[in-house]
Amino acid sequence: MPEFFQVTPLETLFAYMTRFAVMDTEKIPLPSANGRIIAENVAPAGDYPDFNRATMDGYAVKAEATFGASEANPVYLTLTGNIAMGDAPTAAIGPEETMAISTGGMLPKGANGVVMREYVTHIDDTTIEIVRSLAPWANVIAAGEDMKAGETIIAAGTRLRPQESGTLAALGRKQITAYKQPGIGIISTGDEILPIEAEPGPGQIRDINTYTLSAMAENGGGIVRSYGIIPDDAEQLKAACHQALAEVDMLLISGGSSVGTRDITIEAISALPDAEILVHGIPLSPGKPTILARSGAMPIWGLPGQVTSAMIVFDRVVRRFIEYLAGLDVTGKNPEIRVPARLTRNLNSTPGRTDYIRTRLIPNDNGYAAEPILGKSGLIQTMIKADGLIEIDMHTEGLEKGSQVGVILFK
Amino acid sequence: MPEFFQVTPLETLFAYMTRFAVMDTEKIPLPSANGRIIAENVAPAGDYPDFNRATMDGYAVKAEATFGASEANPVYLTLTGNIAMGDAPTAAIGPEETMAISTGGMLPKGANGVVMREYVTHIDDTTIEIVRSLAPWANVIAAGEDMKAGETIIAAGTRLRPQESGTLAALGRKQITAYKQPGIGIISTGDEILPIEAEPGPGQIRDINTYTLSAMAENGGGIVRSYGIIPDDAEQLKAACHQALAEVDMLLISGGSSVGTRDITIEAISALPDAEILVHGIPLSPGKPTILARSGAMPIWGLPGQVTSAMIVFDRVVRRFIEYLAGLDVTGKNPEIRVPARLTRNLNSTPGRTDYIRTRLIPNDNGYAAEPILGKSGLIQTMIKADGLIEIDMHTEGLEKGSQVGVILFK
Repeated sequence: MPEFFQVTPLETLFAYMTRFAVMDTEKIPLPSANGRIIAENVAPAGDYPDFNRATMDGYAVKAEATFGASEANPVYLTLTGNIAMGDAPTAAIGPEETMAISTGGMLPKGANGVVMREYVTHIDDTTIEIVRSLAPWANVIAAGEDMKAGETIIAAGTRLRPQESGTLAALGRKQITAYKQPGIGIISTGDEILPIEAEPGPGQIRDINTYTLSAMAENGGGIVRSYGIIPDDAEQLKAACHQALAEVDMLLISGGSSVGTRDITIEAISALPDAEILVHGIPLSPGKPTILARSGAMPIWGLPGQVTSAMIVFDRVVRRFIEYLAGLDVTGKNPEIRVPARLTRNLNSTPGRTDYIRTRLIPNDNGYAAEPILGKSGLIQTMIKADGLIEIDMHTEGLEKGSQVGVILFK
Repeated sequence: MPEFFQVTPLETLFAYMTRFAVMDTEKIPLPSANGRIIAENVAPAGDYPDFNRATMDGYAVKAEATFGASEANPVYLTLTGNIAMGDAPTAAIGPEETMAISTGGMLPKGANGVVMREYVTHIDDTTIEIVRSLAPWANVIAAGEDMKAGETIIAAGTRLRPQESGTLAALGRKQITAYKQPGIGIISTGDEILPIEAEPGPGQIRDINTYTLSAMAENGGGIVRSYGIIPDDAEQLKAACHQALAEVDMLLISGGSSVGTRDITIEAISALPDAEILVHGIPLSPGKPTILARSGAMPIWGLPGQVTSAMIVFDRVVRRFIEYLAGLDVTGKNPEIRVPARLTRNLNSTPGRTDYIRTRLIPNDNGYAAEPILGKSGLIQTMIKADGLIEIDMHTEGLEKGSQVGVILFK
């Protein structure tokens, strides 16, 4: 197939990532931390929990005292007290002694297990009978069993899920250091593009990319700023880029899939301060007419005007750059999960480029079938019907019906 | 195993869902619609696009005129014009005629395909030579090919992804009707629970559940309101519930895993106006001591105090109620995706209850291995290390190493 321009291998494209600067950090309160990327390694100062904690309602005992206990051969212990929630036990227990304890309560010294109350009978006010042997540390979370002092529990570069927020709460981290969220500027270009409130005349369509790309950038952890629709005019585009340069951390310009308008994007970017076109065309289908440039330290993308192409380039390429700027550890320790599924039909592909095929997942007895969505790549409805993408790498000529693929779910 | 209380089957629990009212709707601007649940069926008034649109740079032709064209036997057409972006063509073309067109341009009447410019040679100012045969409708999105007038494209009850936002933009929907987001009140209870800024004394721990549950409720589409930590006192808990009743749409009370404190939760809820305890104990592990109640039309949950149990009950049970209130279509048209994986070890389970096992996904040549995370269920670090959960249903006694499971990813 003839090529209008040479394309840049994806490895080269991704290698450019480290040319850009990761965002600065800021202190944020824990309730705002959900989904944010932490900029510090978190290690507890002391063991957690810092006391032996009951996980059942029952009786704190020295487990060894119960060894051999059975219905036929019960063990009798002296009840020396009741441990109130949130209080330290008033005394230690000896091997023949026990204290009543509730879930979450602190075990007294001398105890290393909790007998569940259903295995206990009260003989009198100070004597209980136990009919089951207890393994040491049963029904207890021992001091330090959840987290050890000094051990890194959450590494810098982690996106905080609810469980990380909970861990930070456990450690008393009312405030954490997080990376600032990158500002993502979005510009739609094209003489044929109208604002969504306008009624398109013949040959005109409404601006879609501002909305799809804004939503994707938001989902990727960016803070979006839209710069509207710019006609196919290098001077106007340059002015919009200039404004964005001062206000955001990355700029996405979509539109200009035709050769003439692509030239306008190149012209506008090249005229920015300290500008460099790094990539002009990538071996991705859909998505070949993609530009990566910089002005100073700011990455600027020229994305295809076709809605679906722009979305797929965002998903597979741009998102990773946003995550890198946002401080996420992108070294591959947490590779994205691809849902294994069996292909429902043959797929052709052109070697030398990576193809992304929109796909629906259909549950079946063996897991999932991956059903490629038919229809031209420019149709946004193919994205509506799909759950994600199948990747056909550049060395593969196609995939056979029934072969196993990994479906990349939309985020 | 002895039971303190009878448990309610999960089908019965989920059947209670429809007793509660779905949220009211509101008009929201499209840029705020990402992730929201739409409350209207969306169908385009007219076909989309409403003109035949080029998907390549090239020449608009009547495809039939090129049939049989080859290097040896070229076809010659008369170039009658150039179609500007965003404009309607000034005239139709005849079978022997063509017009230059750019990607996104509107085809003239008479044209049903676009010959890519690389297959065209200019012979003179008004004549082009074509050396390839073109299939009708090649390199064109025909009017109505993406969406047909009147066809429901987005159904009420759909959570809007970027592609749905883009579709709404294409249709000029500057504003949409969405369900309001449910307000979720969160209360932590327990005499042993301290605010995170406090330094716990012996037997005390910091409030974790407020942070984990808030983050999960937020991720589930709720708007969170925290009512702080309430000690084990029915009067104080009742007062907090009263306040929440006036301000939120669902209330989560965590804590009180011990029998005594659970009684306090029951007492406080029962004293609310038009109160009813619907469920007291569910066949879930972890998570058995779960309460579902109502006061008037407001659902109230009593969740286990153990961090991990509360998270798992939220994930498997509470989230679905939030989604229902939030207007999501929960009829199962879009079942959650579970990643097929092979179990790395045997797992035991008790029939009669559904077990959820924290699990890490490890990529391998065949897809994924599912590695259960060892460690007591009360340890929050098991949630940190896990990617999701394996479900062992109530009719299964356990799973064998190597068997296929579906891992439910954390959201």
